[in-house]
Amino acid sequence: MAEERSCVLVLNGPNLNLLGKREPEVYGKLTLADINRLVAEKAASLGLSVDFEQTNHEGVLIDRIQQAVGHYSCIILNAAAYTHYSIAIRDAIAAVAVPVIEVHLSNIYKREEFRHHSVISAVTYGQISGFGADSYLLALEGAARMIHGGK
Amino acid sequence: MAEERSCVLVLNGPNLNLLGKREPEVYGKLTLADINRLVAEKAASLGLSVDFEQTNHEGVLIDRIQQAVGHYSCIILNAAAYTHYSIAIRDAIAAVAVPVIEVHLSNIYKREEFRHHSVISAVTYGQISGFGADSYLLALEGAARMIHGGK
Amino acid sequence: MAEERSCVLVLNGPNLNLLGKREPEVYGKLTLADINRLVAEKAASLGLSVDFEQTNHEGVLIDRIQQAVGHYSCIILNAAAYTHYSIAIRDAIAAVAVPVIEVHLSNIYKREEFRHHSVISAVTYGQISGFGADSYLLALEGAARMIHGGK
Amino acid sequence: MAEERSCVLVLNGPNLNLLGKREPEVYGKLTLADINRLVAEKAASLGLSVDFEQTNHEGVLIDRIQQAVGHYSCIILNAAAYTHYSIAIRDAIAAVAVPVIEVHLSNIYKREEFRHHSVISAVTYGQISGFGADSYLLALEGAARMIHGGK
Amino acid sequence: MAEERSCVLVLNGPNLNLLGKREPEVYGKLTLADINRLVAEKAASLGLSVDFEQTNHEGVLIDRIQQAVGHYSCIILNAAAYTHYSIAIRDAIAAVAVPVIEVHLSNIYKREEFRHHSVISAVTYGQISGFGADSYLLALEGAARMIHGGK
Amino acid sequence: MAEERSCVLVLNGPNLNLLGKREPEVYGKLTLADINRLVAEKAASLGLSVDFEQTNHEGVLIDRIQQAVGHYSCIILNAAAYTHYSIAIRDAIAAVAVPVIEVHLSNIYKREEFRHHSVISAVTYGQISGFGADSYLLALEGAARMIHGGK
Amino acid sequence: MAEERSCVLVLNGPNLNLLGKREPEVYGKLTLADINRLVAEKAASLGLSVDFEQTNHEGVLIDRIQQAVGHYSCIILNAAAYTHYSIAIRDAIAAVAVPVIEVHLSNIYKREEFRHHSVISAVTYGQISGFGADSYLLALEGAARMIHGGK
Amino acid sequence: MAEERSCVLVLNGPNLNLLGKREPEVYGKLTLADINRLVAEKAASLGLSVDFEQTNHEGVLIDRIQQAVGHYSCIILNAAAYTHYSIAIRDAIAAVAVPVIEVHLSNIYKREEFRHHSVISAVTYGQISGFGADSYLLALEGAARMIHGGK
Amino acid sequence: MAEERSCVLVLNGPNLNLLGKREPEVYGKLTLADINRLVAEKAASLGLSVDFEQTNHEGVLIDRIQQAVGHYSCIILNAAAYTHYSIAIRDAIAAVAVPVIEVHLSNIYKREEFRHHSVISAVTYGQISGFGADSYLLALEGAARMIHGGK
Amino acid sequence: MAEERSCVLVLNGPNLNLLGKREPEVYGKLTLADINRLVAEKAASLGLSVDFEQTNHEGVLIDRIQQAVGHYSCIILNAAAYTHYSIAIRDAIAAVAVPVIEVHLSNIYKREEFRHHSVISAVTYGQISGFGADSYLLALEGAARMIHGGK
Amino acid sequence: MAEERSCVLVLNGPNLNLLGKREPEVYGKLTLADINRLVAEKAASLGLSVDFEQTNHEGVLIDRIQQAVGHYSCIILNAAAYTHYSIAIRDAIAAVAVPVIEVHLSNIYKREEFRHHSVISAVTYGQISGFGADSYLLALEGAARMIHGGK
Amino acid sequence: MAEERSCVLVLNGPNLNLLGKREPEVYGKLTLADINRLVAEKAASLGLSVDFEQTNHEGVLIDRIQQAVGHYSCIILNAAAYTHYSIAIRDAIAAVAVPVIEVHLSNIYKREEFRHHSVISAVTYGQISGFGADSYLLALEGAARMIHGGK
Repeated sequence: MAEERSCVLVLNGPNLNLLGKREPEVYGKLTLADINRLVAEKAASLGLSVDFEQTNHEGVLIDRIQQAVGHYSCIILNAAAYTHYSIAIRDAIAAVAVPVIEVHLSNIYKREEFRHHSVISAVTYGQISGFGADSYLLALEGAARMIHGGK
Repeated sequence: MAEERSCVLVLNGPNLNLLGKREPEVYGKLTLADINRLVAEKAASLGLSVDFEQTNHEGVLIDRIQQAVGHYSCIILNAAAYTHYSIAIRDAIAAVAVPVIEVHLSNIYKREEFRHHSVISAVTYGQISGFGADSYLLALEGAARMIHGGK
Repeated sequence: MAEERSCVLVLNGPNLNLLGKREPEVYGKLTLADINRLVAEKAASLGLSVDFEQTNHEGVLIDRIQQAVGHYSCIILNAAAYTHYSIAIRDAIAAVAVPVIEVHLSNIYKREEFRHHSVISAVTYGQISGFGADSYLLALEGAARMIHGGK
Repeated sequence: MAEERSCVLVLNGPNLNLLGKREPEVYGKLTLADINRLVAEKAASLGLSVDFEQTNHEGVLIDRIQQAVGHYSCIILNAAAYTHYSIAIRDAIAAVAVPVIEVHLSNIYKREEFRHHSVISAVTYGQISGFGADSYLLALEGAARMIHGGK
Repeated sequence: MAEERSCVLVLNGPNLNLLGKREPEVYGKLTLADINRLVAEKAASLGLSVDFEQTNHEGVLIDRIQQAVGHYSCIILNAAAYTHYSIAIRDAIAAVAVPVIEVHLSNIYKREEFRHHSVISAVTYGQISGFGADSYLLALEGAARMIHGGK
Repeated sequence: MAEERSCVLVLNGPNLNLLGKREPEVYGKLTLADINRLVAEKAASLGLSVDFEQTNHEGVLIDRIQQAVGHYSCIILNAAAYTHYSIAIRDAIAAVAVPVIEVHLSNIYKREEFRHHSVISAVTYGQISGFGADSYLLALEGAARMIHGGK
Repeated sequence: MAEERSCVLVLNGPNLNLLGKREPEVYGKLTLADINRLVAEKAASLGLSVDFEQTNHEGVLIDRIQQAVGHYSCIILNAAAYTHYSIAIRDAIAAVAVPVIEVHLSNIYKREEFRHHSVISAVTYGQISGFGADSYLLALEGAARMIHGGK
Repeated sequence: MAEERSCVLVLNGPNLNLLGKREPEVYGKLTLADINRLVAEKAASLGLSVDFEQTNHEGVLIDRIQQAVGHYSCIILNAAAYTHYSIAIRDAIAAVAVPVIEVHLSNIYKREEFRHHSVISAVTYGQISGFGADSYLLALEGAARMIHGGK
Repeated sequence: MAEERSCVLVLNGPNLNLLGKREPEVYGKLTLADINRLVAEKAASLGLSVDFEQTNHEGVLIDRIQQAVGHYSCIILNAAAYTHYSIAIRDAIAAVAVPVIEVHLSNIYKREEFRHHSVISAVTYGQISGFGADSYLLALEGAARMIHGGK
Repeated sequence: MAEERSCVLVLNGPNLNLLGKREPEVYGKLTLADINRLVAEKAASLGLSVDFEQTNHEGVLIDRIQQAVGHYSCIILNAAAYTHYSIAIRDAIAAVAVPVIEVHLSNIYKREEFRHHSVISAVTYGQISGFGADSYLLALEGAARMIHGGK
Repeated sequence: MAEERSCVLVLNGPNLNLLGKREPEVYGKLTLADINRLVAEKAASLGLSVDFEQTNHEGVLIDRIQQAVGHYSCIILNAAAYTHYSIAIRDAIAAVAVPVIEVHLSNIYKREEFRHHSVISAVTYGQISGFGADSYLLALEGAARMIHGGK
Repeated sequence: MAEERSCVLVLNGPNLNLLGKREPEVYGKLTLADINRLVAEKAASLGLSVDFEQTNHEGVLIDRIQQAVGHYSCIILNAAAYTHYSIAIRDAIAAVAVPVIEVHLSNIYKREEFRHHSVISAVTYGQISGFGADSYLLALEGAARMIHGGK
């Protein structure tokens, strides 16, 4: 079971499949594939395995969070726009025993007012935002520390 | 000058000197000295030097942020309660060229409503919260990556 | 056609498939299958037939509400988290001629502020909340009375 | 004491004595006496005894809720207009050990904005609204189930 | 029945029994008895009979409004402080067929913010405020015109 | 000068020239000319002279209020839509020594939310609304009483 | 008259008759009778006489405040839930010449948001809250000092 | 590529498949097929080709908007209920280079308050609402003008 | 009378006389005369006659809307800044039988928050915004369709 | 052209023609003529020419601001009540190239809440308030400095 | 240690050093030295020792609250203006084991709206306000009772 | 003493020591020393002496304002960020007899929403903002006029 617990799911929400192709001044030049490759490399160095999934569908995100139970030790979640209104995703996070780390590429507090509020933060383990692709790498580091010790 | 740029200032605000002594269920059992020692160790492993300061005085925090120019490559700031109302600290951060990483020990979104809003986030480089003492370590990792490459 | 009208659809929204498995202190120990069995028994005693569906997908809920026309005399709907923001589900309810009874397991007014507001109540026939699994049974009784007489 | 616990108090607040006489398009054609007779019949079928009281006075409602302790197993309360502002009734409900079921004849969410908020819901056992006179009958059924088993 | 319709009830709410005794700079020097005498004189000149009642109890105001049906052609109501929060009085006014004219001695818009909002205005026939004791006399004139012709 | 003081100006704002021609279900069947004739008759019976003016222009209303000084003992003002936002008219009323009685034909509290707030009420002598054309006649009566005695 | 002025009325509002019987973790274990006895003892030591009254009725509280004129030098008032919405009680306090000291057993700022606002504070002499039964004793001491000297 | 640019996608959101079947007093008697036929006819007259799609699923709308890149010169979007809360659709619109014209059949400003706010307007090219089926035809005309010249 | 009905009034509000002269990045390079010429050409092609007027005066806009009755089949109105606060213009639109189409050159939802709210939309026939000068041409097309058929 | 640029327009809005005649405790004893004379004297000493205009009409203020282009180097504007709601005046200021200095006689922050917000400040060059007649003189000095150098 | 526990710290915040010198109509004629002398006398009579400190610096208040641990049994705190925004002082109070009694000289609910909210009340033991210098004396009495028994 | 009264204190708050070094596009190129030199020159020409102080500490600003009594005839205060939340500075200004002129370099109404509100304006003599360094010079001129005459 320790084997199972050492796997991390990186779950990306709506429009993140467009990373690197659109608005690089906001989101950077790296594509999601680029970021995933960096994450996979770091995961290897930390002794973690890692899976990746991206979807534009709120319901699929909920399904995946529910299905993570028993398979992943941690979810790194960039819920993108759903961060700001999906109480259904919040409830999924609260319902499962798997800790979720919330990440954002950009500093959401520099953007529109409605992006300053997250409906999921209160049920996640921690939040990292503003570091670009590094947000995912720091989250992975945080996941490793959490798995090997906790707060 | 590269020498200078590889130094990081860890700046802690009001009541963080009480860490580990009070309310361990909220803030953990580590004292600020414990955390600083962990940070110093990690800094060494990352090839960074690091200085520490804690103060309860808003004015002193502003003075230190201003004085960091030319001496530090990055400030890791836990402004504690001032996070929520000190526009003066916000202005200091905005005025200096040194990037600031905002950290919080606890997940501030699980706490009182008034702790959900930060007046400084919009002018910081990134935010990390909820990882306990690890928040500082992840911030240091983020600082190292920023110094060696940026977003 | 009277035959058709005596069938009721019990439609459950996101995360209700986890009932009984997670957070029993909030939602009780019964699984959704347990509740459905109780509802089926009571439906039999009331001379009603009943169908069940659960989904995490907002769009599927809308599809099912639309498809209920001509097949069901009443929908018993626990929209869960979507209760609080899905105007699309509201519009589906308003658009179909089938009356909808809104149910909640827990007393949503004892929970977070954002759960106190329902965007669908104004277009439903009635609301029942706080009775645990009994909320469904009371809704079924209400449906039977409505089908056999109305307000 | 089991005897005592099997009695239910149906408590009606301001202007409900006018039921059936005024605004039948909102509240239906049944008078309060008609509804009480239906409730009494159903109570008999459920093996419960039931008492009725209506008053326009907030203070009297508080007195009755306080006096219910030791005499009733459950209160079915339609606080009418007081639902929306009587914190004093809320405190009475919170202070007594007798569970209270909140009922409304009409779907209050179809009416004026100020009727969408109830100051008593958070301290009641459950809520039923929108079923007309059936709201009371469903509440009685809910009371019977609660008395014989609970959530 | 025309006889009955020509009687008007002047109903005064909480603390108006203190008129003329307290805060004459706000409410004038006339006592409630003085005002009632002026109203009675004017009523006589208009061919109307008039009854008076004052109470500090919200429930009594509701009782009186309900009992006015069939006995009075119009109620002149100064609900005083209850104007600003008694939805129960609002419902009583809405439930009875007797038109209600809302009066205030002082110009409530010159006073505290919370006095600018009336929860009963939307269900009254008209409002008169700011004329001191003359508010009642104008209301009586308005009642006479309404009884003899309407808007 | 007593002569002068016994003259009243009836000042009507935007769209009131359409009275009786449009939306009689809201504003009644009387034209503005009809109302003015009724007011003139009543003024005569009260020993007052009366002048009339209607304009759609905010600036003209301000000019007229300013020019009333020394010529009128009272202004009866129906500022119509300007009631809800013209701080400039408010300032004009506050600046002149002539008392202003605010009238409205309809019960503005039965209409849209934005019509419930008047920016001029706080600087007027009193308000009368909801009596249809009678609102003007009651205002005239109130003016006569004020001129011959005051509050 | 000095005799009369040395008497204090302790007036308790809704649900305070249940003190010590319900929710001791919020309100303490002392009954209202226990508290009154402590107050009476302290009053004796301060050379004051003291009367006690408790009621659940808003109207009765208003009546008593009005009747206090000429009989009491001070009222110690725990308006309980009415504190938060009874403008009618506020008006009674403002209308009488007897100073009122507002007390609360619990620290109302640690409780629900709606309990943080008092509609009566602005017209009372002073406020004491959070000291449990001692709140009454401190209020009595404050009354004695006020009677013998004032602010 | 000019060929490709001259194709327009008409994308309809939740419940618009029910057009003409439900609530014709709000949405008109035309079915979505009727409207599409009118749009196709007009497109032909303007020398444009046009594709149609309707879905109740937010995720599918996002997928389609993303997939429009390189295939369509313009999207005519009626996001229906999602207009008011789908930040995910907003982000998809902002992320793609294809201009989007927002249409509504009804005048949304005559309906419920929550329909007055659109979260997507700020990232669309323009908005047309209230013209019934003509809204689509005007949008198509606008698209043609934009494709052949721009603002 | 059909003749009369086929004339359209294009009414422009404050500062639109500066079009093309100021802030072309917001409003485009066309002057109001340029736009009017384009509108006149299109009107001719649609078999409509058209009149133009621009004014900075709110009162004149009201006068013109009132005077349109019997002379115009439709008003195309760009109320500019008055869109956001002129309830007087709203009332004029509501009072006349002539349908009004609301147009804006720029996408007002991309601009300051206060420009997102229109006080006139609820009483207009439809709205078109964001198409630059084309907004007027689309409105004219919409007017033609409305005159020849309606929604 | 330098000649032209050295002329300043002092533009006064509604009710300022009453200065010195009404409410001297708020606005001082000087009439507008007095102030204009002081301004003219100071202008002479600064080598500036100056024109004066006062109007109660919003539309005239807009006309004058538009007409200032090419004739004045600066406008000193006291928009009085229009300061708080005239978006039309704001748009005029934003549309013209002439800088506008906003002045107020009184300290508007000591007055009613609604006077604390100015809709024009964001588009003016600077603001001066609270200095009485000196506000105009300081504005003139500021204008001279701006004309001869700028910020 | 009992010795130590019987000492009370009276801590005064910004501008309280000006007491008696400025605005005696708000704060009374006593200087802070006068009040401290009265407090010292009463402390002696209660068998308590007492220390005094006043500072205008938020940081110093925080330092003192932290340093009170182990030296004082209770802090009597008048945080003055900081009461309304210093979350840092709130956190200091929450972090230390020493109970804090909040006092105010004036009835803060009679003053500006922003003074009605205290950010520290929720973490203090109790609050006393409005009794002038007596507020401190009552607080001392409350402290003595708390030290010798508690709530 | 007239000597003393002719001295002015220029008091600058947090981050103003960075003027000219940081963000010149917002605050201009002049350093604080440059501005002070300009102010000193103008003071000399006006026959005033002037002292300067800058601090980042709120408490020091309060100390200086208090100490100004008896030494300065006027304070020119740029409280910078503290302008928006320091009620403690507000109270200091209100408590001392020395008039305070509030200045801002930039037009704060063109900046973030939270900079539009000043908590000190209501207690200052007047405000000047938006003129860059000239704001100080105009304030000095205003001070001179105030000292030699007042409003």
